[in-house]
Amino acid sequence: MNTDKTFRIRHLNRPESFARLISALSEQGVTVAGVATVHTGQTHAYRDLTLSLRSEKEAESIQALLAGLESVTVEGVVDEVLRLHEGGKLVHRGRIDVQSFSHMREVYTPGVAKVCRAIHQDPSLARLYTNAGNTVAVISNGTRVLGLGDIGPLASLPVMEAKALFYGQFVDLNAVPIVLNVSSVDQFVETVERLAVGFAGIHLEDIRTPDCIEIEKRLIERLCIPVMHDDQHGTAVVALAAARNLLAQCGKEPRNVTFAQVGLGAAGLAIGVLTQAAGFGRVIGFDPGEQARAAAAERGIECVSFEEAVAQGDIVSLTTGRAGLLQPSMIRRGQIILALSNPSPEIEPAVALAAGAASALDGRSVNNLLGYPGMFKGAIMAGARAITTEMKLRAAEVIASQAIPGEVLPDPLRSSVHRAVAEAVAEVASRR
Amino acid sequence: MNTDKTFRIRHLNRPESFARLISALSEQGVTVAGVATVHTGQTHAYRDLTLSLRSEKEAESIQALLAGLESVTVEGVVDEVLRLHEGGKLVHRGRIDVQSFSHMREVYTPGVAKVCRAIHQDPSLARLYTNAGNTVAVISNGTRVLGLGDIGPLASLPVMEAKALFYGQFVDLNAVPIVLNVSSVDQFVETVERLAVGFAGIHLEDIRTPDCIEIEKRLIERLCIPVMHDDQHGTAVVALAAARNLLAQCGKEPRNVTFAQVGLGAAGLAIGVLTQAAGFGRVIGFDPGEQARAAAAERGIECVSFEEAVAQGDIVSLTTGRAGLLQPSMIRRGQIILALSNPSPEIEPAVALAAGAASALDGRSVNNLLGYPGMFKGAIMAGARAITTEMKLRAAEVIASQAIPGEVLPDPLRSSVHRAVAEAVAEVASRR
Repeated sequence: MNTDKTFRIRHLNRPESFARLISALSEQGVTVAGVATVHTGQTHAYRDLTLSLRSEKEAESIQALLAGLESVTVEGVVDEVLRLHEGGKLVHRGRIDVQSFSHMREVYTPGVAKVCRAIHQDPSLARLYTNAGNTVAVISNGTRVLGLGDIGPLASLPVMEAKALFYGQFVDLNAVPIVLNVSSVDQFVETVERLAVGFAGIHLEDIRTPDCIEIEKRLIERLCIPVMHDDQHGTAVVALAAARNLLAQCGKEPRNVTFAQVGLGAAGLAIGVLTQAAGFGRVIGFDPGEQARAAAAERGIECVSFEEAVAQGDIVSLTTGRAGLLQPSMIRRGQIILALSNPSPEIEPAVALAAGAASALDGRSVNNLLGYPGMFKGAIMAGARAITTEMKLRAAEVIASQAIPGEVLPDPLRSSVHRAVAEAVAEVASRR
Repeated sequence: MNTDKTFRIRHLNRPESFARLISALSEQGVTVAGVATVHTGQTHAYRDLTLSLRSEKEAESIQALLAGLESVTVEGVVDEVLRLHEGGKLVHRGRIDVQSFSHMREVYTPGVAKVCRAIHQDPSLARLYTNAGNTVAVISNGTRVLGLGDIGPLASLPVMEAKALFYGQFVDLNAVPIVLNVSSVDQFVETVERLAVGFAGIHLEDIRTPDCIEIEKRLIERLCIPVMHDDQHGTAVVALAAARNLLAQCGKEPRNVTFAQVGLGAAGLAIGVLTQAAGFGRVIGFDPGEQARAAAAERGIECVSFEEAVAQGDIVSLTTGRAGLLQPSMIRRGQIILALSNPSPEIEPAVALAAGAASALDGRSVNNLLGYPGMFKGAIMAGARAITTEMKLRAAEVIASQAIPGEVLPDPLRSSVHRAVAEAVAEVASRR
């Protein structure tokens, strides 16, 4: 592996104790990449020792070596990823630093009463004078988190914090994660309805299917701010953007193309619906579940068998969660394959290409971070009451257009991409 | 008044147009304190013109003068307080700036799954790896906001943002306002129970009486994180701190003193209960409402008439919302008067002093900003499951001790005061 590993050690707080430790490592040929002193007590010191190691096996033997040294204890291996998340990933702070008594009387009581009164008289002023105009709530009940399943609201919070973080970094929007200890659709909808009044948008995330579809539908009906379930529409928008560019690379037009969607869960169904709206010649779908097929048929997607979908699709998009589902022998020469399941795709892109696919992507490349920040920003900038199909189609167009020539999708860390999406979505929203 | 006033004006975008405007002001002897150019279009410019004016009357005549000038329009008077609140008072952002694809894969998927899994296995790790360990939710339904009454959740949001802002500034805690569109106690409690899982503390604010008492009670029973209604206990802690120092100035001990509480609503009842716990010799109370008296009696507060309360109290604390209720003739020489109603007290401190009071304060001086930030910070630092009476008493002691000699209470903008409260509260919490 050749990687850095950090051990938290405790040793007698004497120079010779530390020197012995470093010598022992040197004798094994281990490079000390860094030493951070965590805490120095009266008798012992705590240090984080980062070592460059060649293998997991060497890591084990070095840990044993350290533990065997006189007056040294290995407290544990410090995990860099976990450490990155320590303290949470967000800061929720004041934009104003209150400096004086008179300043306080403007920010807080009695001055703030003037702001409250103005909003009470004209609620639309809340958009201007409070964070209700620029804050998205990222809401989940943790019933379907990444590949982990139903791990509950608290364990889903790290994902919501990550989603929230990108709003600030990419499009200068506030975001607040709210995880709900509710499992029924009714309770979820009711709770969001009660708390939505202080927010500019509701970003739904990691909710099990079919609940997510019903929850999003009801909230869109009842709230007059943008509501979007990212796992459905964020994914669909980015998949459509990828499909557009891949077709362009082959010189094909969507209207002459059959789009096959394998897996009609939350994401798959949304991809099917959006590609229909995008004017693909024919959209067909497959799912083993009867309910899922019924939902797709209701939305005009022609349901076929798995084999038919793969055989007939010029583009085959897969969102099944079943790694390795697509056999290389099934691939037709010149097909476009989007094997979107995370963390393991239905077919490895390299395998699909070797089997004759014109192009192939997995879920890592079709990153839904490309969609939601600009979509919400644009909708909120324009004061839109919902994120419409037209706005989603335009977002996909802009994302596709922002890719560097030769690439399928742009780099999600490039802020200009998100700004372009936001502006285009706002422009569509303002037209209405 | 002699104050600055800012007019937003629109004028033809030509040098002579602006010069004419400035000359006209100069002819009236008006000083231009500042000019901010808001926007310059092809034909017109928008500027915020801040003028030093001597009276409201002069402001009106100058506004008329500006409006009368050729090719000038007065768009409106810019209110400095409203402008301060523009865009909301908070920022909810990421603590991490994601720099690279590999960094993204640690902050977000797939790396974040490791954090989710760890918390799923041991929920207590959420305190370490998410903002659930350091974020307070400031929650209201806006049914009793400042002196404004029931203005609803949205119009209460500016107050919640102010309360949230002080957490960051004073004690380095995150805070998120959540305003709820609910009116019943049951719905309020149910909603907070559902969303509390992602927070370290629940700060209740501006809820009508007696709902606030029932809501706080039920949430304390059901949640295992600190819950406090600031209008009750924040106020009580600061009032007790003031009472302590005022008694010390007269060389008196609480145990030899009668504390009279006039008004037994949310704040009054909490003051009565806390002064009892603080060991005052006798605590008596009055309220015109039968329910309020019953609630007080239930908590061991002896209910008397208004006249008896004022006559017998060595300290008379008033939280009635009725300006001018206390007649100077009723004051007994040497009494301590806390006339706490905002924005207008039951008696002006100067009037009370002239009538023979040993000391007198109003609600402006007894600022509950002194209490809640340190109390929540201390409770959260110690991992306390509730804010106990012992912790409130200790907070009052520390606040009193932080006053500069000769002053009754410390300056709430001094961060060291809040840090001292937090440490003392954490220390009490850890003792258990």
